[in-house]
Amino acid sequence: MAEPATATQAAAPVVALLKNELDIVIPTIRNLDFLEMWRPFFQPYHLIIVQDGDPSKTIKVPEGFDYELYNRNDINRILGPKASCISFKDSACRCFGYMVSKKKYIFTIDDDCFVAKDPSGKAINALEQHIKNLLSPSTPFFFNTLYDPFREGADFVRGYPFSLREGVPTAASHGLWLNIPDYDAPTQLVKPLERNTRYVDAVLTIPKGTLFPMCGMNLAFNRELIGPAMYFGLMGDGQPIGRYDDMWAGWCTKVICDHLGLGVKTGLPYIFHSKASNPFVNLRKEYKGIYWQEEIIPFFQQAVLPKDCTTVQKCYIELAKQVKEKLSKVDPYFDKLADAMVTWIEAWDELNPTGPVPNGKAA
Amino acid sequence: MAEPATATQAAAPVVALLKNELDIVIPTIRNLDFLEMWRPFFQPYHLIIVQDGDPSKTIKVPEGFDYELYNRNDINRILGPKASCISFKDSACRCFGYMVSKKKYIFTIDDDCFVAKDPSGKAINALEQHIKNLLSPSTPFFFNTLYDPFREGADFVRGYPFSLREGVPTAASHGLWLNIPDYDAPTQLVKPLERNTRYVDAVLTIPKGTLFPMCGMNLAFNRELIGPAMYFGLMGDGQPIGRYDDMWAGWCTKVICDHLGLGVKTGLPYIFHSKASNPFVNLRKEYKGIYWQEEIIPFFQQAVLPKDCTTVQKCYIELAKQVKEKLSKVDPYFDKLADAMVTWIEAWDELNPTGPVPNGKAA
Repeated sequence: MAEPATATQAAAPVVALLKNELDIVIPTIRNLDFLEMWRPFFQPYHLIIVQDGDPSKTIKVPEGFDYELYNRNDINRILGPKASCISFKDSACRCFGYMVSKKKYIFTIDDDCFVAKDPSGKAINALEQHIKNLLSPSTPFFFNTLYDPFREGADFVRGYPFSLREGVPTAASHGLWLNIPDYDAPTQLVKPLERNTRYVDAVLTIPKGTLFPMCGMNLAFNRELIGPAMYFGLMGDGQPIGRYDDMWAGWCTKVICDHLGLGVKTGLPYIFHSKASNPFVNLRKEYKGIYWQEEIIPFFQQAVLPKDCTTVQKCYIELAKQVKEKLSKVDPYFDKLADAMVTWIEAWDELNPTGPVPNGKAA
Repeated sequence: MAEPATATQAAAPVVALLKNELDIVIPTIRNLDFLEMWRPFFQPYHLIIVQDGDPSKTIKVPEGFDYELYNRNDINRILGPKASCISFKDSACRCFGYMVSKKKYIFTIDDDCFVAKDPSGKAINALEQHIKNLLSPSTPFFFNTLYDPFREGADFVRGYPFSLREGVPTAASHGLWLNIPDYDAPTQLVKPLERNTRYVDAVLTIPKGTLFPMCGMNLAFNRELIGPAMYFGLMGDGQPIGRYDDMWAGWCTKVICDHLGLGVKTGLPYIFHSKASNPFVNLRKEYKGIYWQEEIIPFFQQAVLPKDCTTVQKCYIELAKQVKEKLSKVDPYFDKLADAMVTWIEAWDELNPTGPVPNGKAA
């Protein structure tokens, strides 16, 4: 597992599940050569590329891929003043892709992620595993010690209540990383040579009431069930913080999934994460987040959504209100973020007027 | 993984961690030939054998093991009228061994469990892994996506609050089973041929607020931290229910660990579980439990212990009170069980008068 899979290993024939119902969203500032490795797995799907940084730069996409590409000019044109909620010079801009998609499912991946190999040396079709995770139920109300009971060869163990065995719909599937682990800057600095070589052959539901650090590098979700909660916040250019975009989305998503009775899974699939980002740069982006999260996480752990929050949009607007009330005292940034959360929902509803989970505005 | 390890595979030299601080508790009705396979791993330790069923029967223990053996006559003699809280004709009798032990740690294993092999073919020293689990902290307040952050090659991922990285003391380590999975009777009947062949290379903390089905087949715990909660209830002879002894202990243990800020881990180590018990017999023992657990589990999920419950004993007595109040309406059995829970604590304190977590009675 010290090397990514080769193109030959990744070239086995593939059945493209849900190929008309899933978009792959990729935020990038460079040519997308990394797609060559993913070709056998991704080529049947539509890509939404969100170009970050200088919009005059041309991003090259390998031939044969079906894609649409949005740069900052496009985002500004499409959203008008509401474009302020989309981050600039930060991969948080990817959430614009979730908003313009018209598909039921999203898979998002970073452009420094390659195809990993399982312990037998087989190239891992990460997307296929995410789809399996999303299409099978989650079990957030009770822990199953043999992990995902819906996997082949597994089941619910003795003592698992039968009334809970139907499970609940899965809203998100969080995949992991071999090679470079997703560490914060302090841990990167302390353990510069640590590599993740442990392939853990498991998928599990994160229990109700438990928060987790959601990484946006290798993530899939059901846009119809949870899309409007997948806002990656205000990061990067002009903001006091970076590298907390996916964390923010993860906290909001988990609180809303718990409230609405939806599931979040983590574990398989692995991707091969090729290069560690610069820990010194990361420290500069992160240090406020490291400090703030000590207050943000208890806030989300204690957040209660009222019963009349029956759609993701209503839940999200309510969370924005609570962020303004309770986190603005931590830093004025959260006041701005709370406003951006509301703008995000307004923009979402504008682009998705007949969404499957309408909040009252649907035609 | 379809076969247990051979004696040769299991015979690698072993460092016996904590050999003066841990007892191995084995409930049995037969000769303990299974210990031959475990000899390299278990021989340095003291065994407490709890003989179930006919006390006139002689249980043969392979030569060279250091053990004490208790049959029903011994239990009755030692506990007097309080012996009523120890089950008869059910492996729930094992908890008597926890009570008479004077060690800090307990490992309990069933006599149909053999040494499993890891994917490389190496014999798994289950006890050593349990000890590692117990000696490293747990992380119940936030989920770490790379599993146990204290394992070699792993750490806390980006977004994990630094204030929570110290973890909390680990009270229990729940191991798993290759070959015959721990299924209930209905699942056994539906999937008679299913075998667990998936080796999941992970240990994880079960989050605070989440219950799990604790199996007593391959279990270790810190007796000083949680011993008095490890009561395996009233099962078997004269009782309307069986095969819920470990589940009962698991529910009580988890609620008390959550209240006291202690951790429970599950995952590695695996043992090789050799034979499935008879599903028809199991169904007879289980059917009331299958029905009752639909009310018992919500009861434990909602149980709140008052702040002045600062010891395991106080927590357990309080739980007994709540069981009597809230579960007796399910069946009169729970009234009897609640009384037995109190008797168990009285007997525990009698045998452990200077226990490390005294409840006020200690000398």
